[in-house]
Amino acid sequence: MRYLLFALFCFYFLISCEDRDTPKTIVTDIEKNIEKHPKTARNLKPDGSAYTHEELEGLPHAELMQLIHEPLRDTIGTIGILLYDGYFSLDAMGPHSVLSSMYPAKTFFISKERGLVKSNNGLITQVDTTISEVKQLDILVVPGGVAETYRASKDQALLNWIKAIDQNSTYTTSVCTGAWILGAAGLLEGKKATTNWYRAAEKLKEYGATFVNERYTNDGKYWTSAGVSAGIDMSLALVDHIMGRNYADFVMLNLEYDPQPPFEGGSIEKTDPVVRFMTQKMYDMDLEPVITEFEENIK
Amino acid sequence: MRYLLFALFCFYFLISCEDRDTPKTIVTDIEKNIEKHPKTARNLKPDGSAYTHEELEGLPHAELMQLIHEPLRDTIGTIGILLYDGYFSLDAMGPHSVLSSMYPAKTFFISKERGLVKSNNGLITQVDTTISEVKQLDILVVPGGVAETYRASKDQALLNWIKAIDQNSTYTTSVCTGAWILGAAGLLEGKKATTNWYRAAEKLKEYGATFVNERYTNDGKYWTSAGVSAGIDMSLALVDHIMGRNYADFVMLNLEYDPQPPFEGGSIEKTDPVVRFMTQKMYDMDLEPVITEFEENIK
Repeated sequence: MRYLLFALFCFYFLISCEDRDTPKTIVTDIEKNIEKHPKTARNLKPDGSAYTHEELEGLPHAELMQLIHEPLRDTIGTIGILLYDGYFSLDAMGPHSVLSSMYPAKTFFISKERGLVKSNNGLITQVDTTISEVKQLDILVVPGGVAETYRASKDQALLNWIKAIDQNSTYTTSVCTGAWILGAAGLLEGKKATTNWYRAAEKLKEYGATFVNERYTNDGKYWTSAGVSAGIDMSLALVDHIMGRNYADFVMLNLEYDPQPPFEGGSIEKTDPVVRFMTQKMYDMDLEPVITEFEENIK
Repeated sequence: MRYLLFALFCFYFLISCEDRDTPKTIVTDIEKNIEKHPKTARNLKPDGSAYTHEELEGLPHAELMQLIHEPLRDTIGTIGILLYDGYFSLDAMGPHSVLSSMYPAKTFFISKERGLVKSNNGLITQVDTTISEVKQLDILVVPGGVAETYRASKDQALLNWIKAIDQNSTYTTSVCTGAWILGAAGLLEGKKATTNWYRAAEKLKEYGATFVNERYTNDGKYWTSAGVSAGIDMSLALVDHIMGRNYADFVMLNLEYDPQPPFEGGSIEKTDPVVRFMTQKMYDMDLEPVITEFEENIK
């Protein structure tokens, strides 16, 4: 087997077995309180009760490893996140922050040219890997945007690369309007998928896919998410799917991902109609000149 | 007044008043369905009912602007996000994706040296602005991490810069263990604050602050959030606070931020005790050698 299960945790345990002069762990009041009332204890003692912090400190390495052991669904070695100028930053950086925790898989960014790639909102990322260098990925992630995503969906060299990668990928995924690109590559034909709310049904229909109004969905190995931040939820679901609940639970705690938006909103259903109307118009303004540009080139 | 209210929306409306050959907007089935059942209509017609999409299309520019008008609490021109090697990527990129929508404020990254800054998980960002060049910010955001955040909290040149910026900032904020840095700069003394769950009460007490176990909190102009992804919630609350509900509603829809984690977790209270124990040990392993290093240097 190429990879150790829970290598990140293993790493801790391997090291902790050495005779180190480790400062005593400080148990905070919150932790003490939780031990009295464990809400989500899963990895229990033989008598069905939860381990206390002190009991865990005393547990032998092998026993701890046995406790959290879950079989891996797939062996994931490489996770590639495509970047192109104008992508929505969080479409890529949300999944990156989740998937890069899938130790020991290597998570990295890929772009057409080596160098700096600029997001829609001014994040400039150094990308060291180009599509011409990458022949295989276990997971491909395609983020979205508006005008520049439409442009990418017309880029035949890029689409050819995505099709080639998809041939041997374990999972081919998109976030937000990244589904436009997967669609344009012909990968969503006859499949159910989701995407950003903007022109969702229309765009997926264009590619022969059926829009399902879900936060994220999958049709076989094709995982797609709704807009921007939904990529975080999808990625966590993917970690859960591949590595099991204990590992996903760790990743979620590592990101302290127990979201509490300041008010209800963030979906087309929960947004004020006037705000929604104006947001839609703003996207139209970004997108329509590019559509016109491509239509005129065809003529 | 230096900035236009809702300049992003204004921009659309200013342009849309021109006689352009705009393709007809496609109203999807979802949108039609929502118009029948608007759940969160706020900007209503004089009779108290919600505008339909068609009615909004026909509304004069001035009337639409009047509809969504809310007074700004503060005039925000500059938003600086501090980056340093080893910061947790989402600590910075979550708030960046929210705050960079605060048009026309300029949101940018700042680091000690010009050039590439590497996050904990391999995101390499080009930063063009150094602390020596920035004398004033309206909003400062300090992200966290583990070992490298501790190291930053001992960097006197960095702390001096933060103190100087804080003198004239409208908001001084931190995400996750970024509070350790604000604390080390003496800015949280006597204040309530929150931070990542790891050693939360202990670390804040060290800086004379009182830990409140909230997703985000503020004590006057000092806004602090819990770990990593909590920076998104805090930033949205800040946009709401500064620019009003309509603008925050727009930003939330723009990020499609209606989170649906795949399962309950992501906080110390909702995580399995064994997973929590091992995550804490992993952080200890990262942090403790750096603490030892600094303690030995003092001797």
